This record gives sequence, C-alpha cells and structure tokens, in this order.
Amino acid sequence: MAVQKPSVPSGTRDYSPDVMVRRNYIFHTIENIFRLYGYQPVETPAMEYLSTLMGKYGEEGDKLLYRILNSGNFLAAAGNLDIQSEDPVRLSGLFCEKGLRYDLTVPFARYVVQHRNEITFPFRRYQIQPVWRADRPQKGRYREFYQCDVDIVGSNSLLNERELIEIIIEIFSRLNIACLIRINNRKVLAGIAAYIGEADKLTHITASMDKLGKAGQEQVVAELMERGIGRDALRKLEPLFSLHGDNRSKVEHLERLLSGSITGRQGIAEMKQLLDLIDGLGQPGQVEFDVRLARGLNYYTGTIIEVLSKNENIGSVCGGGRYDDLTGIFGMPGLSGVGVSFGADRIYDVMNRLDLFPPAAVSSTQLLFVNFGIKEQKYMNALAPSMRKEGIITELYPDEAKLKKQLAYANSKGIPFVAIVGEEERNKGKITLKEMTSGEQKQLTLEQVIEHINSWKKKF
Amino acid sequence: MAVQKPSVPSGTRDYSPDVMVRRNYIFHTIENIFRLYGYQPVETPAMEYLSTLMGKYGEEGDKLLYRILNSGNFLAAAGNLDIQSEDPVRLSGLFCEKGLRYDLTVPFARYVVQHRNEITFPFRRYQIQPVWRADRPQKGRYREFYQCDVDIVGSNSLLNERELIEIIIEIFSRLNIACLIRINNRKVLAGIAAYIGEADKLTHITASMDKLGKAGQEQVVAELMERGIGRDALRKLEPLFSLHGDNRSKVEHLERLLSGSITGRQGIAEMKQLLDLIDGLGQPGQVEFDVRLARGLNYYTGTIIEVLSKNENIGSVCGGGRYDDLTGIFGMPGLSGVGVSFGADRIYDVMNRLDLFPPAAVSSTQLLFVNFGIKEQKYMNALAPSMRKEGIITELYPDEAKLKKQLAYANSKGIPFVAIVGEEERNKGKITLKEMTSGEQKQLTLEQVIEHINSWKKKF
Repeated sequence: MAVQKPSVPSGTRDYSPDVMVRRNYIFHTIENIFRLYGYQPVETPAMEYLSTLMGKYGEEGDKLLYRILNSGNFLAAAGNLDIQSEDPVRLSGLFCEKGLRYDLTVPFARYVVQHRNEITFPFRRYQIQPVWRADRPQKGRYREFYQCDVDIVGSNSLLNERELIEIIIEIFSRLNIACLIRINNRKVLAGIAAYIGEADKLTHITASMDKLGKAGQEQVVAELMERGIGRDALRKLEPLFSLHGDNRSKVEHLERLLSGSITGRQGIAEMKQLLDLIDGLGQPGQVEFDVRLARGLNYYTGTIIEVLSKNENIGSVCGGGRYDDLTGIFGMPGLSGVGVSFGADRIYDVMNRLDLFPPAAVSSTQLLFVNFGIKEQKYMNALAPSMRKEGIITELYPDEAKLKKQLAYANSKGIPFVAIVGEEERNKGKITLKEMTSGEQKQLTLEQVIEHINSWKKKF
Repeated sequence: MAVQKPSVPSGTRDYSPDVMVRRNYIFHTIENIFRLYGYQPVETPAMEYLSTLMGKYGEEGDKLLYRILNSGNFLAAAGNLDIQSEDPVRLSGLFCEKGLRYDLTVPFARYVVQHRNEITFPFRRYQIQPVWRADRPQKGRYREFYQCDVDIVGSNSLLNERELIEIIIEIFSRLNIACLIRINNRKVLAGIAAYIGEADKLTHITASMDKLGKAGQEQVVAELMERGIGRDALRKLEPLFSLHGDNRSKVEHLERLLSGSITGRQGIAEMKQLLDLIDGLGQPGQVEFDVRLARGLNYYTGTIIEVLSKNENIGSVCGGGRYDDLTGIFGMPGLSGVGVSFGADRIYDVMNRLDLFPPAAVSSTQLLFVNFGIKEQKYMNALAPSMRKEGIITELYPDEAKLKKQLAYANSKGIPFVAIVGEEERNKGKITLKEMTSGEQKQLTLEQVIEHINSWKKKF
C-alpha cells in the first residue's frame, strides 16, 4: 500500500500530552465545583437523528451540521429521482438520517424529554463533550471543540441564577482568572424596545447593541438607522448605551423609563431581586448589570449572563441565561431552565498567555529509574511500587541504553529526579538520586528518596 | 413545527447520572494508575480522513466505518458519472472524505508519525475516547462505545510487557475484580504451525484454536479439518489443546516440540524471559501461559495478552499485545510497541452484577438545604459555602415548595441528609439536621453538622 502523509482534517486538532494535562486541569477544576453544588454528569451520543438537530440552529446552523452517510446502499432512498439534477440539500436528507451534535443544549433537551419519567426535577446536570460544526476554520475557531455546560431545569427561582453566578466566581477564582460578570435580562431589553417605540424590532436592536463592545457607538447607530430605527427612537436609545453608576442606580433609572411596559417592569423586578440575591457575592463591582448585553436573544427569555477575562481581551469565557421553553419542541412545554457554558478553548488560551497553570497540576513523571541491565531491573521492579504507593509518578526506562541517552530522555521529558541503581546501590540496598536541574547526586535509602521527592512536590 | 418523539440512533446510548458516576469511577481508577506509571494522555479528533482509516481493518471493517458527507455540493465530485448505476461503495468514497474513528490504534499510529519530531521515545501514552462502528447492534454490542488504550512505543524490551501486566493486576485489584491474565506469543503460535507441518495455515489454525473456550474441542477439530488441516497435523496439534502443569513446565514441553522452528524458538525464549520478569507478580496462578490464545493475530507480532473476569463469564475485559510495525503504513517503519485496551463496558457490567462499586465513589449530593422562603434563603446561602469548603456536596432546593415535596425530592435522589433552617434555627444560629434513612432530627451548630456528615462519609 502507498505510504500516506498523515494529517488531521482541517479545523480539528490532536491534543498532545502537554496540552492534555492543561485541559484536564481546567475540566477537573470546573467539574469538581459542579459536583460540589450537586450537579450530576450526563453524556449523550455524538450522533443524533437529523430530525432532532434540524431547525434548531437557524438556516445557517442547519448548513453547518455534519451529516453521516447511511450505511449500505444509501442510494436506495433516492428511488427514481434524477439525482444529478436534485438539490444537494434535499439529497443529503435522503442519504443521511444522522448528524453529529452541534451543541450540548439540543441533545440535553432531547434527553430531558426522553427520560422525563426517570428524572427528579429540579434537575441539575452538567455535560462536558465535544461538538462539531462544518464552519470555515479560522484562528480560534475549530470544527471540533469541547463544550462544558451546566444547567438546572424545572425551577423558575432566581436562586438558580444566583447559584450559577456563585459557581462562575468560584471556578474562575480557582483557575486564578480575574473576571467580570455581565448580566442583563431579556425582558428588560423588550421593555427598552417598547420604550423607544420599536417593540417589533427587538431582535435588530439587541443584535446591534450587542456589538457596542467591538464596534463604536457611531457604527452601531448607523446600523440601527439602516435597519429602520427612527430618529426619535435613537434619541431615546442612545443614552442607554452608556448608563453610569452602580447596578442599583442603573436599575432605578431604567425602572422609571420602562414603567410603561409590562414585560419591562417584570424584567426590572427580576433584576432587582437578582441583585438582592447576589449582594456580597464576589469582589465589589465584579457583577455588572449591562443593558447592552444580548447573546442569542431568541433563545433566552429571562436573565442573560456573560463572563469576560479582565486581563485578556479574548471575548467571553463563559455565557448563558434562562430559557422558558427548552423542551417544548420535543413535546414537553413549560419547563423553565437556566444554564451557562464554559468556553474551554478560550479559558485555556487565557491561562496559557498569563501563565496561570500551577506547575504541580501539569507535572508528569517525577522519578525515572535508569536501566543498567537484568539484575538492576529486578531491583528497580521491586522498588518502584513503593514509590507509586506514595503517589510519586515513577517510570522505568525500558531498554538497557547508555546512561547518557537515558538522562537525555529525562531531560527532554522534564523529569526532575533520576534514580540510579547499579551494582553498588544494589549491594548496599540504597538508591543514588540525581536531581536533574542541579545535577546533584546523593546516595539515599528508599524512605529518604520518598521523603525527598514528596517535600519537593510540596514546594509547588 | 410538529412535535417529535425523541430518541437516540439505534446502537447508541445516553449515559444518565447514575451510570455516569459509575463509569467515571472506572475511568478515573484506570487513569490514575496509568498516570502513576508515567503514561501521558493524548486525544485525537473524532473525524479522520477516510484515507487514514481505510484498509486498516480489513474489508469488513471498511464497511463498518461511518462516513461524513462532504459539506456543500457533495455531488460535484461525481462529475458526469451516472450516479444511479454506480456502486454505492465507490460513490461514498466520492461523496465523503472523512469518517469517524473506528478504534484508537490507527489514529494513534497516525498521531505518532505526524508528531514524530515532538515525541521523546520510548513514548508512553494513554487515550480514553469513544469509537464508532456501523455494526449490527445487539446485546452488549454498541455503535458508539469507549475504548481505553495504553501503549508504549519505541522499545523492544519485555520490561514493557511486564509493566502492562503489573498495571493490569493493579487496576483490577483496585476495582475489586478477580481476574485471570492469559498470555501467549505469536511466535510460539507460528512455531506450532510449523511443528504440525502447516506453517502456511497459521491464521486458520489460530482462528480456530481461539474458539476453544466457547466451542468444544470436537467442533474446533471439525472446523480445522474443513479448513484443510490434515490428520497427521491434527494428531500433533490436539495434545496442545490441553497442556497441563504450570507455566514453566508448559514452556519446557513446548520448547522441545518447537525446536525445529526458528520463530518458535524465538517465541519460547521471549516467553521464558517474560515469565522470569513477572515472577512474583499477582496471585499465584493469576498469569497463565495459554497457547490457545490468539486475538487478532495478523496484528500482533509478539506477546499476546488477554484478561478474563474470574467471577463473570463475559468475555475478555482487557486485551492487547505487541506489534512490530504499527506506524509503517504511515511511513515510519520499524517502530515496535506494546499495548492493551481496557473494555469499559464489560468492566462496568462485571462491577454492576457483582455490586463492586464503593458507595462513596458513586454517591451524589450529601446535604440538601430545604427552602422556606426569602429570609431562610439568605441564611442558607451563607451556610452552604462552609459545607462545600469541607468537601460536602451541598444542594439548595431552589423553590419555596412544601416541605413534603422537598423531602420527597431528597428521598428520590437518595440524599442522606437534609438541613432544615426555619425562623427558630435562624435566630439561634443553628441547623436542624435530618437523617433521611432513620428520620432522626437534631439541632446542631454548623461545625457539628460538618463533623457529623464527614464522619458518616468515613463509614464507606
């Protein structure tokens, strides 16, 4: 067979060990917090029926679904159609019944409905799995990436929003990432649209306002005018672009403006209650009520949450909100839920750039036994289990190679300690421990080696 | 939109929380041991180019690959072909350039070659990811399932085989599964084929011998005759079906028989050396040299390993062996490796049937705060972080529901403790702790609650 030059499909990645241990550190930190709050893990299959996925992500989303060709004679489903003149989109529906999941939300909604009789509500679940999108790959955008979702469904209480904000603060504090949490409420946005007399253009207004961070105010105003927002409306809207003061005074200011809209009043009431509930959470000013925040508006119905890294301008590292009818499309209406999703790739980038990974968390092998031959192998085979029992990550060099080669291996892998056990050590029942950074060597007993390495580990 | 009855594609599964925590317990146990021995995690993309996957699993395997339809106008690649009269297999090659990975071995081989310049050999890696096969679903056989592979490549030393056997013993001992480890060597099998004068029928012979566990000897002999193995050959082969004695005496017996075959002598030498190396590992008799063991012979070139649960007749729970040319097909010949794969689904089944999961490992929420209203919420919001800080998994009931409903929730989720904080408790700065199994209630301080739950946890 011809030799192939190996590569991975564009937009996908191999995760090598140095990346994996860092990613695992992030996932484990997040997962541990989820678990401490009583959230339980769920996993769903990579493949879902296309009927489950289609129509949930808009027309654009449907195009980005990866479709799995039906097994066997997939052509049969086309019957007598003139395939060559058919629409590829229609044909793909005939040739494929399954697709790869596009996010974790729709599979979760499907899961909740399918398992409704086994689930005790309110249901707290988390899910950490890859998703696939046939998007154009570009810097920071992949065709395969992990999502890390946490949701509670079956409860309207704003205590859930509070809990998620507490979880966000806890997770980013453990990861050592300084973060700003922006919150808003879709009902407040609806109230604003009503207040400026453009209730029917809510989607346009919020889509434009959402760009205020990246684009300037001028550009946003121009876009709004293009979309048919009148001068009077803009005059009322513009002051909201730059509301000043603390959360409370912003809410009070808006309360007066939005008093004419029932939805607006509801939104303000919810925001006031939430601000009460989160009083004292996090650093002063860490949670900011921001009316410009919109995030996938058609989806959320209440609270909206977005988290930014304070020290890296990289977009949101976490986001989510409340949705009142997640499961209606699958025949289970009226189930309210709220959830957020942590962006593992961006969190990784922030931590990498700011060098926030603790050395101990990403360390690999701590001790390498050098291999001098058959007699020494028996000796090291007998010693290594005691090291591992004490939690020391211990490797044996498998081949009888030259010492120089074995030390080069330790160096290249960043192994801090090497155990040298030759004839002399064997006879004395000792171990020569070499510290790779200093080059220092000492003859020690087994217990001393364990003590030495464990006290070195504590320095991190 | 019409309401859909939700379901997952046949052969795939949702993992609900009670299953997830058990699966995670297995994966974490396995992963912790891998890490202790210096193995490092790697992950590869779910999608690989079909050119990477095709031809690696035999003709049958190629048919079982899931193919991903090319994005956009996938028909274009067919050009002027008369699609309707084309072979579906050939067409699928035109319509699809990517497929889902079928196992972890071929992607790992691709990974090693692609990243050869970053890897320090010998390279110890583990990989725990799902794989997909368009197989006919049946009891215990799924179209999506996890594999859990551990390999060391770039070393010929039998110390690696020893290490993997030590790891197998350690993992199954931690999982509390009594297991039998069968070992063989492909070169011994080649020697046997030469000894009975049927060297060219090695594949047939071993494929049949491999069935000796399930089928009886008579059936196997009949099959061998059908496959053209002569009477004389069978007369020489049959005694090997039931070799008696300990490993050493079996090897010595075979050594005499296979002395005429170079490959056979090599196999015997390797087996003797391996038996020396593993002397004293595990329980007496736990590792058994068994010439009937073959396992995907065309793939392995040296040692073959298979692990059986002693108490559940469920097939192998782990298996693998040495392969001398994993990466040759991708242009990097001569790299020897050895590895085993742990069967998470079967291990799960064994542990479930024998009730081997430790309660603490699969426990979820330990303490539920009952919600009586806004004042109590503030009190419990202030108390809960102290509980979580001490590692107690703590939930707040988010809604002001009737006490009966909240206790029913705790019961249904198997939460052992409920904290009741009403007006009285708030005023006294106490917590009423209810133990759900006994129904007993006590008024305690925060510290006493923590102590009580933590001492309860220690009982497991």
